[in-house]
Amino acid sequence: MKVIIVGGVAGGASCAARLRRMNESAEIIMVDRGPYVSYANCGLPYHVGGSIENESDLLVATEQTFRQNFAVDCRTRCEVVGISSERKCVELKDHATGDVTTESFDKLVLSPGAAPIRPPLPGIDLPGIFSVRTVPDARQIKQWLERGAADLSGMDSYTGFQTVTKPQRAVVVGGGFIGLEMIENLAHRGLEVTLVERLDQVMPPLDPEMAKLVQRYVERHGVRLELNDAVAGFQQIPDGSLEVLTASGKAHPADIVILAIGVRPETALAQMAGIETGERGGIRVDEQMRTSNPDIFAVGDAVEVRDFVTGEWSLIPLAGPANRQGRIAADVIAGRDSRYRGTQGTSICQIFEAAIAQTGASEKALNRLGDTDFEKIFLYPNSHAGYYPGAKMLAIKVLFRKSDGRLLGAQVLGEDGVPKRIDSFAMAIQMGCTIYDLEESELCYAPPFGSAKDPVNFAGMVAADILRDDMPISHWSEVNNGFLLDVRNPPELAVENVSGALNIPLPELRERLDELPRDQEILIICRSGQRAYYATRILLQNGFQARNVAGGMLSRSHAASS
Amino acid sequence: MKVIIVGGVAGGASCAARLRRMNESAEIIMVDRGPYVSYANCGLPYHVGGSIENESDLLVATEQTFRQNFAVDCRTRCEVVGISSERKCVELKDHATGDVTTESFDKLVLSPGAAPIRPPLPGIDLPGIFSVRTVPDARQIKQWLERGAADLSGMDSYTGFQTVTKPQRAVVVGGGFIGLEMIENLAHRGLEVTLVERLDQVMPPLDPEMAKLVQRYVERHGVRLELNDAVAGFQQIPDGSLEVLTASGKAHPADIVILAIGVRPETALAQMAGIETGERGGIRVDEQMRTSNPDIFAVGDAVEVRDFVTGEWSLIPLAGPANRQGRIAADVIAGRDSRYRGTQGTSICQIFEAAIAQTGASEKALNRLGDTDFEKIFLYPNSHAGYYPGAKMLAIKVLFRKSDGRLLGAQVLGEDGVPKRIDSFAMAIQMGCTIYDLEESELCYAPPFGSAKDPVNFAGMVAADILRDDMPISHWSEVNNGFLLDVRNPPELAVENVSGALNIPLPELRERLDELPRDQEILIICRSGQRAYYATRILLQNGFQARNVAGGMLSRSHAASS
Repeated sequence: MKVIIVGGVAGGASCAARLRRMNESAEIIMVDRGPYVSYANCGLPYHVGGSIENESDLLVATEQTFRQNFAVDCRTRCEVVGISSERKCVELKDHATGDVTTESFDKLVLSPGAAPIRPPLPGIDLPGIFSVRTVPDARQIKQWLERGAADLSGMDSYTGFQTVTKPQRAVVVGGGFIGLEMIENLAHRGLEVTLVERLDQVMPPLDPEMAKLVQRYVERHGVRLELNDAVAGFQQIPDGSLEVLTASGKAHPADIVILAIGVRPETALAQMAGIETGERGGIRVDEQMRTSNPDIFAVGDAVEVRDFVTGEWSLIPLAGPANRQGRIAADVIAGRDSRYRGTQGTSICQIFEAAIAQTGASEKALNRLGDTDFEKIFLYPNSHAGYYPGAKMLAIKVLFRKSDGRLLGAQVLGEDGVPKRIDSFAMAIQMGCTIYDLEESELCYAPPFGSAKDPVNFAGMVAADILRDDMPISHWSEVNNGFLLDVRNPPELAVENVSGALNIPLPELRERLDELPRDQEILIICRSGQRAYYATRILLQNGFQARNVAGGMLSRSHAASS
Repeated sequence: MKVIIVGGVAGGASCAARLRRMNESAEIIMVDRGPYVSYANCGLPYHVGGSIENESDLLVATEQTFRQNFAVDCRTRCEVVGISSERKCVELKDHATGDVTTESFDKLVLSPGAAPIRPPLPGIDLPGIFSVRTVPDARQIKQWLERGAADLSGMDSYTGFQTVTKPQRAVVVGGGFIGLEMIENLAHRGLEVTLVERLDQVMPPLDPEMAKLVQRYVERHGVRLELNDAVAGFQQIPDGSLEVLTASGKAHPADIVILAIGVRPETALAQMAGIETGERGGIRVDEQMRTSNPDIFAVGDAVEVRDFVTGEWSLIPLAGPANRQGRIAADVIAGRDSRYRGTQGTSICQIFEAAIAQTGASEKALNRLGDTDFEKIFLYPNSHAGYYPGAKMLAIKVLFRKSDGRLLGAQVLGEDGVPKRIDSFAMAIQMGCTIYDLEESELCYAPPFGSAKDPVNFAGMVAADILRDDMPISHWSEVNNGFLLDVRNPPELAVENVSGALNIPLPELRERLDELPRDQEILIICRSGQRAYYATRILLQNGFQARNVAGGMLSRSHAASS
């Protein structure tokens, strides 16, 4: 058996190594058009920022590793320039020599990845505008950033000119994962950073209210945000620096521009091979990573996957899924019955000292599907026991089925303890957990690491209170129509008040029930929703109609309606 | 309805608050014989160590909170001195006044906790010997530790006597959670610390090879370990300091002694009430936390619980389960059908910069039950992408069913990323996960937080390789009988060698197969087991009999046999 794998990063590399383990006698050729295989593209922003110091650290496995340990014929700077599905062969161009050779295959695996979107805007090819996809990209960005210092290295001790030419102002176009990681890393290098984003939020997979928290956090770290404004073009001004021009007519000065608009599945090979692509623009594969041609497999960022929660076809370009898909393609080629269960979109992104993470379905995705059988809650628990130093507030949004309590999705932002929680939610979603299961989860607790009631338990308890009708809830978008009761203490109201709300601090509530209307729904507010829950219980059991406003004041400022 | 809750920490406090939310009209009395309710006993070691500065920080909720927010008649320094099951009443002694009053109940909830074991050894009542259970305990320890400084505060600038009388040498008796936390906190205060433990390992719930790693780590932090040696008594020597005398005849000098030998369920109240206790010495309850008397409930460290994985009756004194049990008792009293699913023993303990955590069954527990349908693996992955700074090696042991792949237990030690992994395992065990599910788990990954193949995935893959017969394994305890092949590179052998092993570095293996015996099982060694896996695949497919020695050299030094 002869297998050709096109693309030697993540999915392709995993496929090659796994296939060799499953089949010692197969002939395996792995080609990549770039200079490296199996490099850490997720590490590129951190190499630019300097926390990953050496470029060589990004090279997870080399051509030599693949040859020696896996007996894989590994070829870099080698590009597929033609595919014949009928004759089952590919044409390979060696970029070192320019030679084109033909190789036959029994099975072909496509792992070409996704390419950064580079719209044909005026000035997009000006020097100083970069994408962040490959090791050479990162090298060029670093060289550009160090240029000023290097040029003036002989004279900076007495002229002070260095500050004139060394890049100081960066504009990042696009607020997705790469954009946010680049912001942090450019700021880390001391640059002034502006983020220009066409949409009304950063991190498109996130729900807008969680994105708003991210936006505020980024702004507090000195980044200028320009949302709702598309880039219209770029121009060089007389001093040699750039301007990023936007649809709204603004011109943002820049010494360097990072394009992080998003990625698009590489489907040129699929077109050559005549295999099917889907409506999302990716290569269509079955559960076994087989394309419409049974001898051709595809894995990684180039393929469409089923969303594990919603069942939708999706593009979810993440490294973990790419690796698993590579293994599954290898298993299937080796004659095993492996299947891919879909992608649930578990992701995390470091933003300065914080992390934003999510897993499963967003409210956006559910709304897009017209799904109304869900409820959402917002929690703001401490990352660990509040009495132990270093506890930070987490902001958590959890989505679950109203009809059966099934956990659908979670989004978590915070400066501490985010991975612990998102992975619990991720495992829970994989296993079809309900929010009743979350109530009972037994997660690790010691004061430095958690709480006796972990935020994940707490999410389960709040959701279960709703589904058991112990705590009807309301959302800020709905508070216009009810009687507002604020159960916080007066000093808290002095900081931020809700106009029109009656204030009865929780400890006084039982004695002051006669101040409340019995013919009207009472919407109860506190800081985070906890005291309002206690108040809701008191009122319901005293014959009032009451609802807890989900997430309390902490949700108000970023609620969709405000 | 009138409910009396005895014990106002963790289980009792949770029960009171939950019961009020479920039933606004019940009369709820919560009593505690100590001066505080709802204090953070898990924080006591950190208060002694100084990271939790103020004693008041330990008071999570006060009597006033319970009165005002929950309308609970909360009484401290109030002890139950008699229970009549027939008349359904308790006698309460108010320690402030000495008065004894009688209160009737409809339902009684016992949450007395567990008491530190204090064996009747010679000298155990000498000054300077402390347990760590209550806020006053911690206060006394702090005062004792600060005594020297306080006594000499007026003169320490010129005499230097302070160093003579301020406690410098601590002996901690018992190497469980509290013992280890106290070690860290005493060392943090600058004391020289000796740990004396009767057993041959610290942390009894851990398996011995994982405990050995903890022991090494603690010793590297300057703590003197005296295992396998029971304390025989204590004596005061002429300079006023103490000596801890052991069964082996040693005398360990000490300026302070911490007794952390373990805890024993408080069953005095159960005896008064005439309710059943189990063979483990705890109060017996059903799934609804009901004792043998249907009007009396019991929760928390005083009760025996079913081990969620093994089904055994167990004593698992942990805060999370105590809280959940309190809620369940409240639900049941309020007429709901809540049930406790058992305890899986998820726990974590900070030890200097590291954390040791576990969940589910240990190998010890399975052996004790005569269960042989399990396999174990050892992994040593990075806590996050190795190319991103700060990655630390994790040591992970995973136990799973041989027959069906069900995950049974996990133990994780490391300086980074431990909570993320143990909680994934904990959630997986709760949901009945198999190791095949772990292969497919989609956990969060970005270079600072994980790897594209998370350690949890990696555990699933290794275990699945075994169960699919892709990788037969062996353990160090079995390596005496086979042909040993070491596939590491020569520089690695120079550091640590296995005598009698043939060395063929992995890259040369395919060319040197003729050096290997075909009539004998070949046991393959590398550093962590990964290259040995690759080698196992090569040999098996070439007709050899081969096994991977689980965990490689990293497991050798702490394997049970060595």
